[in-house]
Amino acid sequence: MMKTLSPDDAFARSAPMVYTVVTCLDELGKPNALGVSWVTRASWSPFLMLVSIDHSRYSHAGIRQNREFVINYPTKEQEKGALVCGMSSGRDIDKTVASGLAFVNSEKVRCPTIDGSAVSFECRVIGEMETGDHTVFVGEVVASKGHPEEQNHLYVTHNFTMLALGNEE
Amino acid sequence: MMKTLSPDDAFARSAPMVYTVVTCLDELGKPNALGVSWVTRASWSPFLMLVSIDHSRYSHAGIRQNREFVINYPTKEQEKGALVCGMSSGRDIDKTVASGLAFVNSEKVRCPTIDGSAVSFECRVIGEMETGDHTVFVGEVVASKGHPEEQNHLYVTHNFTMLALGNEE
Repeated sequence: MMKTLSPDDAFARSAPMVYTVVTCLDELGKPNALGVSWVTRASWSPFLMLVSIDHSRYSHAGIRQNREFVINYPTKEQEKGALVCGMSSGRDIDKTVASGLAFVNSEKVRCPTIDGSAVSFECRVIGEMETGDHTVFVGEVVASKGHPEEQNHLYVTHNFTMLALGNEE
Repeated sequence: MMKTLSPDDAFARSAPMVYTVVTCLDELGKPNALGVSWVTRASWSPFLMLVSIDHSRYSHAGIRQNREFVINYPTKEQEKGALVCGMSSGRDIDKTVASGLAFVNSEKVRCPTIDGSAVSFECRVIGEMETGDHTVFVGEVVASKGHPEEQNHLYVTHNFTMLALGNEE
């Protein structure tokens, strides 16, 4: 028998959620990265992905201005650096250094890709929608890359423990 | 070293994805249910969730008209019925019968909740956005319920194998 739960308790029970690192440029054109779990697909054809970005995030203005982002799915080996991207702000530190992750040129967009990710989607923003304290940015996938040997990426539980799950089961 | 992947191969590598059953009413007011993996949160406050629904889905018109849906996270025990909801259309069968799942009254919305789900979010549509071949429906969570003993729900891999993952790790 189900019972009424507080919104926070209910949301915790919907975990684990996929954990991605979204890379982008800030308003000055400097690369940044942030942890994003609120991400999913939005269309088969064209291939659209969406990310929900908090208005308070440093990267929000940069994505709005530059209209590009990359969704990177870090592997278990990249967990520490991926967490740095989620736990700190580009206002305070340069995450391309502090995270220890390898930021490399993307194929089709100006913002970088995190090398070694299990998979990455380069996106150009084709629409956005205000949703409460977040903006949903919808991006068309203009290039996709992956690391053939990496069969897992990260999921985060309600208490921020990281799981690595494979996609080949 | 990452290499360029086809969009389909890249997307497969972003799995496993959470697997939910969205319940709604059709245009005649009859309950229906569909499998939805393209779901995530869109705002902390207000508590907003979003689902991407294919234009071709039978439930699309019903959600658009009735402005309500429930996101149910089925447990491992509900896997078979949850898959029926994902693999068939409400045009052809009555999934409230064919799935074997227990459709019960929701607290705040007219469409049913699937009893025994690990967690469920009752949503009222507050906005929508056309995204290619899908519509993103944004819903405010007006009630949330859960099954206190159920610590797992379903994830689907790229080849449609179901995993049950706990949120208490």
